[in-house]
Amino acid sequence: MTRTRLEEHSATELESLRDQLNARLDQLRGAGLSLDLTRGKPAPDQLDLSNGLDGILAGDFVASDGTDTRNYGGRSGTALRGIPEARALGGEILDLEPDQLIAGGNSSLNLMYLVIETALREGLWGPDSRWSDEAARSGTPVRMLAPVPGYDRHFTICQHAGIEMVNVPMTDSGPDIQAIELLVTEDPMIKGIWCVPKYSNPTGCIYSEPTVEAIAGLPNRAGNNFLVIWDNAYAVHDFESPRAPLANILASAQVQGTEAHIAMFASTSKITFAGAGLSFLGASEALLLVIEEQLRAMTVGHDKVNQLRHARFLHGRLEAHMQAHANLIRGKFDAVLDHLDQELSGLGIARWTRPRGGYFVSVDTRPGLARRIVALAAEVGVALTPAGATFPYGRDPEDRNIRIAPTFPDTLEIEAAMEVFTLCVRLAATEQIIDERRSAP
Amino acid sequence: MTRTRLEEHSATELESLRDQLNARLDQLRGAGLSLDLTRGKPAPDQLDLSNGLDGILAGDFVASDGTDTRNYGGRSGTALRGIPEARALGGEILDLEPDQLIAGGNSSLNLMYLVIETALREGLWGPDSRWSDEAARSGTPVRMLAPVPGYDRHFTICQHAGIEMVNVPMTDSGPDIQAIELLVTEDPMIKGIWCVPKYSNPTGCIYSEPTVEAIAGLPNRAGNNFLVIWDNAYAVHDFESPRAPLANILASAQVQGTEAHIAMFASTSKITFAGAGLSFLGASEALLLVIEEQLRAMTVGHDKVNQLRHARFLHGRLEAHMQAHANLIRGKFDAVLDHLDQELSGLGIARWTRPRGGYFVSVDTRPGLARRIVALAAEVGVALTPAGATFPYGRDPEDRNIRIAPTFPDTLEIEAAMEVFTLCVRLAATEQIIDERRSAP
Repeated sequence: MTRTRLEEHSATELESLRDQLNARLDQLRGAGLSLDLTRGKPAPDQLDLSNGLDGILAGDFVASDGTDTRNYGGRSGTALRGIPEARALGGEILDLEPDQLIAGGNSSLNLMYLVIETALREGLWGPDSRWSDEAARSGTPVRMLAPVPGYDRHFTICQHAGIEMVNVPMTDSGPDIQAIELLVTEDPMIKGIWCVPKYSNPTGCIYSEPTVEAIAGLPNRAGNNFLVIWDNAYAVHDFESPRAPLANILASAQVQGTEAHIAMFASTSKITFAGAGLSFLGASEALLLVIEEQLRAMTVGHDKVNQLRHARFLHGRLEAHMQAHANLIRGKFDAVLDHLDQELSGLGIARWTRPRGGYFVSVDTRPGLARRIVALAAEVGVALTPAGATFPYGRDPEDRNIRIAPTFPDTLEIEAAMEVFTLCVRLAATEQIIDERRSAP
Repeated sequence: MTRTRLEEHSATELESLRDQLNARLDQLRGAGLSLDLTRGKPAPDQLDLSNGLDGILAGDFVASDGTDTRNYGGRSGTALRGIPEARALGGEILDLEPDQLIAGGNSSLNLMYLVIETALREGLWGPDSRWSDEAARSGTPVRMLAPVPGYDRHFTICQHAGIEMVNVPMTDSGPDIQAIELLVTEDPMIKGIWCVPKYSNPTGCIYSEPTVEAIAGLPNRAGNNFLVIWDNAYAVHDFESPRAPLANILASAQVQGTEAHIAMFASTSKITFAGAGLSFLGASEALLLVIEEQLRAMTVGHDKVNQLRHARFLHGRLEAHMQAHANLIRGKFDAVLDHLDQELSGLGIARWTRPRGGYFVSVDTRPGLARRIVALAAEVGVALTPAGATFPYGRDPEDRNIRIAPTFPDTLEIEAAMEVFTLCVRLAATEQIIDERRSAP
C-alpha cells in the first residue's frame, strides 16, 4: 500500500483529517473500553500449558544425585548450586554445561540484584575490585550502560543501588557498539552493561554475532572490573522452530580471556508460571564461587522441590512446550503488526519492530508524541505502558518510544486496543504537524 | 538413681574407670559406626507427612482474592506481601493478624538477612537511622547481642555484614535480661539482639513473659535504632498439644511504643518441606513498608503457587499436622534424655536441657572438654556438631557446649550414638579430673 506521507498533506487536508480522527475518538470514548496493552505477562491459556507441574512428582522427591529435595542440603554443591537436572535445564536454555550455572529460586531479577550488589560492595574479582571503593576514591558515581529502549526493572536495580545509567542507542543488531566502545574508553567509572540479547525488551532484536563478540571483549577495553549482565530472558521464546540462534557470549569471552566478567541469566517465568519457576545464573567457575559464597550467608538454599518439578516437567520437551506457547501468542503479535501496517505504514509518522519472539513490540513515533499518545489512549480506556518507562529514570529524551505488550489480552481485545492506539498516533501526529506549520516562519 | 560424683572418686578408682571406658571405646572403634547427631533437619518420615502438597491444587490456582498465582502481580499488595491465605497461615504461626506480616519465599533466613542489610545500609527508621553511618561517624563497629549458646546461621549473617557479636548468657527463661540491659545502656553501638524465643536453638527454653516484655522494651533503653530479631522458628513445634504459650512480643511492644523495632520471623521449613516452604516476616506496618520497598527493587514477588499450596494443605489442620510430627520425634528426644539420665546423671560432669519441643538438646560438660569429646566421638564414627558452633565466631569461651540434634537419625542410631557420646563425656571428664589431681599442689 502506497500512502502519502502525512507531512505532505495540505493544511486543509490535515485539519479535516484531525476532525475525522477526533470524531472517531469521541465515538470510542462512549464505548466504555477497558483494555490493557501494558503487561508483559503470559495469558491464562499459556499458563494452562504448565498446570501439570503441580502433582508431577507423584511421591518421588529424590533428585538424580540422590538428594531428597524435601530436605535441607544435598549432595556436594546441590544445596546452593541446585540439583543436577535443574542445572541441566538451565544449560539447555542458556546453551551452557550444567556445571557452568547455578539454578536458583523463583526470580532471575533477584540473582541480578545479588550480582550487582556483590560487585558494588564485595567485589566480584577480589576486594580490590569493589565498585563502591572506586566510586569513593574517585568521587564519581558508578555508572552502567543502558541500551535504550530497555527494561525498567533493570533500571530500578541501578537506581536502588545508586548506580547512574548512561543511555546507548539500540540498533537492529543490538546496542551500538561503536558508541559503547567510545564510552567505556573515555569513562573509567562505566562498570557494566545491561543486555537482553535475544528478543530484546522491548525492541525484539537479536544481538548479531559481531555484537556479541564485541560485548564479550568490552572487559578488555574498560576497567578490570567491568561486568556484562546478559539477561537472556527470552532465550527459547521463539515464534518459530527451530530456535533462532544467538552467539554464545561465554564461549566468546573464553577466547578473549574475559569470561570472569560475564553473568548470564535466564528463568522459566515465561516458560511455566511467571514468578513461580526457576532462575539461572551462568558464569565462569570463578564468578560462580563468589556468588555461591554470598548465597551461603543468605540462605540454606533454593527450593529444590520446585527445581525437581520443573526438570521433570520440561525434560525432553522444552522445544515442544515453547512451540505450544508460540501457537497461542503468534496471532496476537500478528494482530498488532497488521494494525500498525494497515493504519500507519507509509504515513511517515511511526516505525515499529517486527519481533519473531519475545514479549513486546516497540513503536517509535515522531519525537515529542509518546506522552500525548499514551494520554489520549488512556482517555478512551486503553492502558499503554507509561511513556518513558523503557528509559532510565523514566525519561525518554525524545519522548517517542511506546512499548506494546500483546500477550496477556485476547485477540479481540488487541484488535480493539490497536484501533485506538493507531488512531491516537495519527491524531497526535496530525496535531503536531498542524502546529509546526503554524509556528513555521 | 543416686551416684557418687566423679570428682569424689579416688585416684585409683578414676584410673580404673578410665581404662574401662577406653576398653569399651576400643571395642566400638572396631564396630565401624557411622552415626550423625549434627543435623537439625526433619527425618524422611516427617517429610512424608507433607507429600500431599504436590498436586494439592488440582488445577485450581486462584487465590482467595482472585489472584492467579501462576502469573506475575496480583491484587493490591499480594505480589510483594503474599496471597491472603498465606498471610493468614503466617498469622496462625506467629500469633498475628494477616495484615501484620509478609509471606515470602522459601527462606526466613533470607528475610532476616534482608532486614539486617536494610538496617545497616538504608535505615529501617529513616535514612538517619542507618547503622553503617553511625559506625562510620563513631569509628566503632556495629554490634549485636547474641544469646549463647545460639544458632550459627544467625552469627554467619553478622559476620558477613561486618557486625560484631557480644555474647549474652542464656537462662531457662531466655537470655539474661539484667546483663542485656546493662550492655545496651553502656554501649550505644549495640544495635540489636538475636532471639529464638520458643524452643530456643539449642537449649530448647521458652522465653518467659517478663523476658519477652523486657526485650520488647529494649528499644527504649538502647539507641533509637535498636532492632529485635525474633526468629520464632519453632513456634508450633511442641511435643504436646495444646501449644505451649509464648507472650506476643509485638503486642507488648505496642504497649511500650517500640513496635517499629520488632521483626518477627517464621517459616514452614520444619512444618512441611525444609527449604521448600514459605517464610514470614511479622512487624509493624511502618517496618513492613520499608521492607516491601526493598523487595520492590529486588524481585517481582515470591512464589505464590507454593504459597497457595501451603495455605490449602495446612488450612484447619496445622495443629494436627504438628502433632503428627511430634509423634515421630518425641521418642527420639526421649532416647537422648534416657541415655543422658542413665549414664551421666549424678556424676557432676554434665548438665543438659529437657526441651518439650523444637529440634535440639543442649549439653554442657565440664569446662574445657567439648572439643575433646567431639574429637573422641568422631574417632569412633559418631559425628557431633563441632564444638563452638553454637557460639559467635565458633568460639565457646568455656569449651563446654555440645548441641545434639536427634530428629534425623532413627531411634536405633540415636541409641548407638548416645552410648558413644555419654562414654566420651565420661572418659574426657575422668581424664581431666586425673590430670587436675596430678597438677594440684
